[in-house]
Amino acid sequence: MNTTRAVVLTSGGLDSTTVLAIAHDQGFRPVPLTFRYGQRHDAEVRHAQHIVDQLGLSADALVLEVPFSAIGGSSLLGEGEIPDESPSGAGSTPAIPSTYVPARNLVFLSLAVATAEARGIRDIFLGVNALDYSGYPDCRPEFIESFERTAHLATRTGTETTADAAFRLHAPLIQMTKAEIIQRGTELGVDYAQTVSCYRATPTGLACGRCDACGLRRRGFEQAGVPDPTRYSA
Amino acid sequence: MNTTRAVVLTSGGLDSTTVLAIAHDQGFRPVPLTFRYGQRHDAEVRHAQHIVDQLGLSADALVLEVPFSAIGGSSLLGEGEIPDESPSGAGSTPAIPSTYVPARNLVFLSLAVATAEARGIRDIFLGVNALDYSGYPDCRPEFIESFERTAHLATRTGTETTADAAFRLHAPLIQMTKAEIIQRGTELGVDYAQTVSCYRATPTGLACGRCDACGLRRRGFEQAGVPDPTRYSA
Repeated sequence: MNTTRAVVLTSGGLDSTTVLAIAHDQGFRPVPLTFRYGQRHDAEVRHAQHIVDQLGLSADALVLEVPFSAIGGSSLLGEGEIPDESPSGAGSTPAIPSTYVPARNLVFLSLAVATAEARGIRDIFLGVNALDYSGYPDCRPEFIESFERTAHLATRTGTETTADAAFRLHAPLIQMTKAEIIQRGTELGVDYAQTVSCYRATPTGLACGRCDACGLRRRGFEQAGVPDPTRYSA
Repeated sequence: MNTTRAVVLTSGGLDSTTVLAIAHDQGFRPVPLTFRYGQRHDAEVRHAQHIVDQLGLSADALVLEVPFSAIGGSSLLGEGEIPDESPSGAGSTPAIPSTYVPARNLVFLSLAVATAEARGIRDIFLGVNALDYSGYPDCRPEFIESFERTAHLATRTGTETTADAAFRLHAPLIQMTKAEIIQRGTELGVDYAQTVSCYRATPTGLACGRCDACGLRRRGFEQAGVPDPTRYSA
């Protein structure tokens, strides 16, 4: 068994929990990295820690505080209302919604690179998805590819001349539909009842059923033909 | 007078204080951004705030907590001893020293982009320098250029089709010697007695005189022909 460690961005949501299972299936030992950043749905951090515990990964896990609340600029941080899902639903090219947190994935990936470099880890997994997503710019393949190059230049490896110097960013979900993600995770034994996707989740993790994230998730289970274990508040 | 705002990374050190003066001289209204990240020389944060106060910029200023202590991997964060300056001194191509903080500028710039985007600001100034520096990979021009492109793709602007969409990263010191930086700052009225560069500064900002940062600074004043106002502890 390959025991190469890989930093895995772990939010407690459906996507990143599937990525934990995929990284493990590919033979990596996941180092879960979770961010607490003033998100309204703080329930996701607790669910992330619960999932990490159940997978026996808590010894290596890290939870970092990130100062997005002080930076501001998003309804997900408490500025204004989180909108219901737009009528267009999935499949259209959405405008960037108010739940977008400025440069969130740029900051998260930068901290993941710092965590990896400090531990001698070269592999980083994240659950971004460019098909069934909320239209956030930092979920697109061109961002991920550009970041990989920048991370190489930002760190010790960028001053080395070996061929195997760069960080490897793994985004295994990036071209998958939500239904395909759920099917793959179900094959790998992911317990989606433990995951929280809702932007307005209650402290105990109940979902609103009306926000963008709930809509994407609900349709994913429908299209996958997998029973939806999501607990709704209404 | 141009009152375009610009985020300016402000550490309380010689370089970033000079950059504040340069940004102001170019007609920008600086929005100082300071990071508290568990650095040993926490004196620099207090000095940064003092400098920001003196320049009348504190209303727009932001101090962010960054979790580098939890990430680790640097003598600057309390792991091991901070080394004295290597005998080679300036001018050689140095190895990356133990004071290197993994991916620090990558994380700092990412948070600067988040801060700028949340405020509708497009210009970001930072005091990196690729000549008289400690050999950190994230001070090189190729990193700065690559980051600028990645930041564009990571944010709202990257989904727009206008020509003027990108963030503009300004690194006015990048090809200047320390002596040239000091000469330029002196012309602009910078009070270098207020700045702290030492990696081992005391809580009141006294410098050790022996670390890499002290050596670069001392030679800079000598070569600039400017009296060195640094207060040394010994």
